[in-house]
Amino acid sequence: MAIVLGPNQYGKAEVRVVGVDRSTPRHSLVDLNVSSSLRGDFAAAHTAGDNAHVLTTDAQKNTVFAFARDGVGSPEEFGLRLARHFAGSFDWISGARVGVESYGWDRIAVGGQPHDHAFSRAGGEARTAVVTADGEQVHVLAGLTDLVVLKTTGSEFCGFPVDRYTTLPETRDRILATAVTARWCYTATDLDWDGVFSGVRTTLLETFAGTHSLALQQTLYAMGEAVLERHPPVAEIRFSMPNKHHFLQDLSAFGLANDLDGEGAVVYHAADRPYGLIEGTVLRDDVPPAEVAWLGTPGFC
Amino acid sequence: MAIVLGPNQYGKAEVRVVGVDRSTPRHSLVDLNVSSSLRGDFAAAHTAGDNAHVLTTDAQKNTVFAFARDGVGSPEEFGLRLARHFAGSFDWISGARVGVESYGWDRIAVGGQPHDHAFSRAGGEARTAVVTADGEQVHVLAGLTDLVVLKTTGSEFCGFPVDRYTTLPETRDRILATAVTARWCYTATDLDWDGVFSGVRTTLLETFAGTHSLALQQTLYAMGEAVLERHPPVAEIRFSMPNKHHFLQDLSAFGLANDLDGEGAVVYHAADRPYGLIEGTVLRDDVPPAEVAWLGTPGFC
Amino acid sequence: MAIVLGPNQYGKAEVRVVGVDRSTPRHSLVDLNVSSSLRGDFAAAHTAGDNAHVLTTDAQKNTVFAFARDGVGSPEEFGLRLARHFAGSFDWISGARVGVESYGWDRIAVGGQPHDHAFSRAGGEARTAVVTADGEQVHVLAGLTDLVVLKTTGSEFCGFPVDRYTTLPETRDRILATAVTARWCYTATDLDWDGVFSGVRTTLLETFAGTHSLALQQTLYAMGEAVLERHPPVAEIRFSMPNKHHFLQDLSAFGLANDLDGEGAVVYHAADRPYGLIEGTVLRDDVPPAEVAWLGTPGFC
Amino acid sequence: MAIVLGPNQYGKAEVRVVGVDRSTPRHSLVDLNVSSSLRGDFAAAHTAGDNAHVLTTDAQKNTVFAFARDGVGSPEEFGLRLARHFAGSFDWISGARVGVESYGWDRIAVGGQPHDHAFSRAGGEARTAVVTADGEQVHVLAGLTDLVVLKTTGSEFCGFPVDRYTTLPETRDRILATAVTARWCYTATDLDWDGVFSGVRTTLLETFAGTHSLALQQTLYAMGEAVLERHPPVAEIRFSMPNKHHFLQDLSAFGLANDLDGEGAVVYHAADRPYGLIEGTVLRDDVPPAEVAWLGTPGFC
Repeated sequence: MAIVLGPNQYGKAEVRVVGVDRSTPRHSLVDLNVSSSLRGDFAAAHTAGDNAHVLTTDAQKNTVFAFARDGVGSPEEFGLRLARHFAGSFDWISGARVGVESYGWDRIAVGGQPHDHAFSRAGGEARTAVVTADGEQVHVLAGLTDLVVLKTTGSEFCGFPVDRYTTLPETRDRILATAVTARWCYTATDLDWDGVFSGVRTTLLETFAGTHSLALQQTLYAMGEAVLERHPPVAEIRFSMPNKHHFLQDLSAFGLANDLDGEGAVVYHAADRPYGLIEGTVLRDDVPPAEVAWLGTPGFC
Repeated sequence: MAIVLGPNQYGKAEVRVVGVDRSTPRHSLVDLNVSSSLRGDFAAAHTAGDNAHVLTTDAQKNTVFAFARDGVGSPEEFGLRLARHFAGSFDWISGARVGVESYGWDRIAVGGQPHDHAFSRAGGEARTAVVTADGEQVHVLAGLTDLVVLKTTGSEFCGFPVDRYTTLPETRDRILATAVTARWCYTATDLDWDGVFSGVRTTLLETFAGTHSLALQQTLYAMGEAVLERHPPVAEIRFSMPNKHHFLQDLSAFGLANDLDGEGAVVYHAADRPYGLIEGTVLRDDVPPAEVAWLGTPGFC
Repeated sequence: MAIVLGPNQYGKAEVRVVGVDRSTPRHSLVDLNVSSSLRGDFAAAHTAGDNAHVLTTDAQKNTVFAFARDGVGSPEEFGLRLARHFAGSFDWISGARVGVESYGWDRIAVGGQPHDHAFSRAGGEARTAVVTADGEQVHVLAGLTDLVVLKTTGSEFCGFPVDRYTTLPETRDRILATAVTARWCYTATDLDWDGVFSGVRTTLLETFAGTHSLALQQTLYAMGEAVLERHPPVAEIRFSMPNKHHFLQDLSAFGLANDLDGEGAVVYHAADRPYGLIEGTVLRDDVPPAEVAWLGTPGFC
Repeated sequence: MAIVLGPNQYGKAEVRVVGVDRSTPRHSLVDLNVSSSLRGDFAAAHTAGDNAHVLTTDAQKNTVFAFARDGVGSPEEFGLRLARHFAGSFDWISGARVGVESYGWDRIAVGGQPHDHAFSRAGGEARTAVVTADGEQVHVLAGLTDLVVLKTTGSEFCGFPVDRYTTLPETRDRILATAVTARWCYTATDLDWDGVFSGVRTTLLETFAGTHSLALQQTLYAMGEAVLERHPPVAEIRFSMPNKHHFLQDLSAFGLANDLDGEGAVVYHAADRPYGLIEGTVLRDDVPPAEVAWLGTPGFC
């Protein structure tokens, strides 16, 4: 028996780079959080403290800033440039993973007109991209995190099995709320990244809204199926969707009905913890899997 | 010398109540985080563990849910109903503070049409209201937190004094970014709460965008002055505005200029800590102060 | 009627400075988060964008680092040096507030012996100090935040009034848990800061543990009273103590009693929100108040 | 081509259960955050909204509380009981993952004696366990998160390659700080869980302290190697270790040297982002891999 080094990677996490295009008076802005990881032969650093193969994480950070100077473009494009650069920089570096979070900004309206250089943050959601260079192969995941959505009706939950610990009553009408984290894998590396992303996001929202839900699992699958049907470059999509419980509040102790058909407001308690957590994958059965594309990306599959 | 009980209050914090109006198929939704605090004669609870005066925090929570059943309305209205109720509930309760955070939801568009009962969260910003009942008097603060705004130009910082520890160069063109927390006091308790709030928010955004900034202090004052000029019911406004530094990245070591007039993107590093913190008040000199309205509300004044 | 500038201050927040004493092989370490705010005549910056009075927040940051070079000492001492420096730096600066958070580190034990230069973080609690220079006067607050404590018995809650919304049953035996934030004001500026701090902290812990609690208010007052009795330099102490509810879980649906006297474990659910929030002050009646010492420090009084 | 359901799981996350052993006046306490996920045939729920196979997440939560009533024991034991129960509860459930976070509490000392029923939280670190039932097989991971450690010397970083973007100088003496997240896999399911955990934790701390570090990678490997050498039941250990940078502050502009051998304190700036991130595995080469044990556990491998 021997003790050996197993899989490893290292890099610089959370480089907060903001690029401003000032080429016309109507400025535009990209706001990114970039993390790089390198893979390859770094055994000597681990076993002997020999750093001859360790491209510093400081240099990785510098590279992010320097590359931004040429213009940033979409998160996927920026990730592709960086991942290819890192993977090709030294013989012993066989791969690189570049993860990008992108934060949206809207133009502030002044007198109804979008301002040239003043912006407000567009909410808690982030757009994500993960580019993995693995030797000559390159893989692109796109995604989003914390897209918080809610339906006030059009959601049931019935027909489940009952064991000793099951006390939940069935319901024909409940609030359904979740914070969608979705990541999807593309079959190509030269897409109209912004266009496809926008299309997938719209599909996710429209399908969530339009699906009469019998289970959050069903909603998840419907969202994934719609994305694959409408967006051919998407090979696979993975979801993590917490069930953010909104419990109908019992007001009977105060002589108040809290029925769904009464006057006034129907009153719910938005709970924090525990929460349901539904995770699942929807994919095409004729696309070969590319597990390396997902390596290091949070998720259960 | 004696050791005595000083100012005190107690209550239930962060009741997460969601009210849904289902009176028509086009549902609407309010999503609140409500905190109540009671003031009055609670000395015996402190000094003798005698709870005869302690309306339980559990009952305060129940009251929030029960009152929501009648319909919630604006944060200010809901706070007024609750604060008046608590302050009048027992002889020994002389006052109450009800703080409300309200989270926005947008209708999801399906095929371009806003959906009847499906919504997405409208971002990280929260609308706030604080209602203080103090005996017969009632005071209303409105506000917002975490309205994150940024200008890519139109901001200078020059002319400051130089001491031994001053190394900052002057700049004629920098990114200005902040997360506005503002709270303002009304002179009335029967306003069109949603209308005035919306107007003040627009004024804040437009003034931030439209002010050529020589200092974040100047921007803050201009925002406050504009609010008071355009919105007569506002007596006073208090701001806490972090200067979220975006530093121009030095790329000269890589042979790259990062000048403001070049090709490509101008590259900034968005820093976390430390940050500047600018706090200030703008007010009318003919309105008597109402310090009790601000008691317990974060801020420095 | 005129619109005027009211109270204001500005500074640099959250300077993360670590000072290491390497004068012997047995190193020691202070780990601080320092925030400074200046008060005085900054009207022109607000109303005209004239920065002639604005000592930059960058210089404030530099000062923190430069002063640390001389040795840091206790948070109170470091705050005193900085506050006096800032308040005396220019004619127009009439006051300064320096807030310090200090994070504890324990020596790692190797073979039972504390190591000379390796440390582990000592938990979530922070020690705090706030020094306010106001003209010639200087005030010192000490404190701590997030000291999380819990009793598994020795806590009752009974005898409260019942209104329409009161449904809580009385209890003779509950878990009592809180996260203590306490801040106290000293009557002197030349104390054995570490010694007094340590003594007060011990008094808080011992009194929490030793008090049979009839209400969290009673525990709060007992803690404050004990601090004032045992520590003469403390003039006043303010508490903010959330009631972190631990609810006895009802297991009767599964045929299980969850009584306090049974076999096995008594099972509680630790709830997040809502929570009770108890705030109060204990003070000496013969010490004149020093409100400026508390200006800008979170708390309700 | 068809669109199909891929890997999926669902469960209840973050059940906050506290168990108190009151069998003697000297109480003890376990404080857990439990998350369960079920794997098996849930296709109909996804594709048809048929919940006949969906053991509710509410029942999973109830099970956690009910099982705690029998006594909780170590996180690993509790996870084993739950995972075996869930995996065996219905034919169509082929596996279960139970993740546990455990929070430490110390007895409060009163007059130097540990109190019978009063406790304080033992810091930010959490102990973790992940038990995976996969058919008849059961796997146990133990671990810890956020063990924050720092060395003030005994750390170098030299000998790295230089590319166009490398500007970092070499250093022979730097602060090394990290927040260790480690998870290790056992070869058995009937260990003295608390004993082994405690031993591994001590090994991690002692090795961090005792290793003269030439790279954080080297420290990571040394920690893993020591764990495997000293603790035979551990088959593999995975680390995620951020390099929490502490930069020597340049004070030369103020006429101050900040050299390591001078008087006073050596002054560092503790940075937030970006940070290095070092991830790696150390394992025995004669133990067959058990990838299912790690499925759904954060980490890159």
